[in-house]
Amino acid sequence: MVRVEVKLKKGHFDPEGDVTARSLKDLGFPVNNVRVSKVYTVDVSVGDEKEAMSLAREMCRKLLANPTKDDFIIEVLTGEGGAD
Amino acid sequence: MVRVEVKLKKGHFDPEGDVTARSLKDLGFPVNNVRVSKVYTVDVSVGDEKEAMSLAREMCRKLLANPTKDDFIIEVLTGEGGAD
Repeated sequence: MVRVEVKLKKGHFDPEGDVTARSLKDLGFPVNNVRVSKVYTVDVSVGDEKEAMSLAREMCRKLLANPTKDDFIIEVLTGEGGAD
Repeated sequence: MVRVEVKLKKGHFDPEGDVTARSLKDLGFPVNNVRVSKVYTVDVSVGDEKEAMSLAREMCRKLLANPTKDDFIIEVLTGEGGAD
């Protein structure tokens, strides 16, 4: 299992975060700013952690992240079914 | 700063995860399943960690999570600017 978090690079405009911040303010919360990112929990058939990490990096490059605007963080989850 | 991860409860259908899994398989990755969740990094003006946690819980109940289908995990980030 691999956990991939994809988030906008600093300085990139985050419309979903801005709308969420405004809604939270409208509800009375003392919020200054919100940034939204996405997490993919991928169940992948691999031999070891190193292979999982390398495959996840390739998945980010080919599909999950946009190199122009996204950063990504990969974490290999060991053990079974931990993060669903 | 508070980090809120909102994820579908187990058993709930995740169409975005399914489409992502199919696309990854089409690209040749040995993927069995993908689940997608969302992370809100909220910059909130509060006095202490306890207040931040309690406010974040309220934000989830009122806006960020759907109690019928979502689970949420709250983490208070101490120090400044750690997670952007």
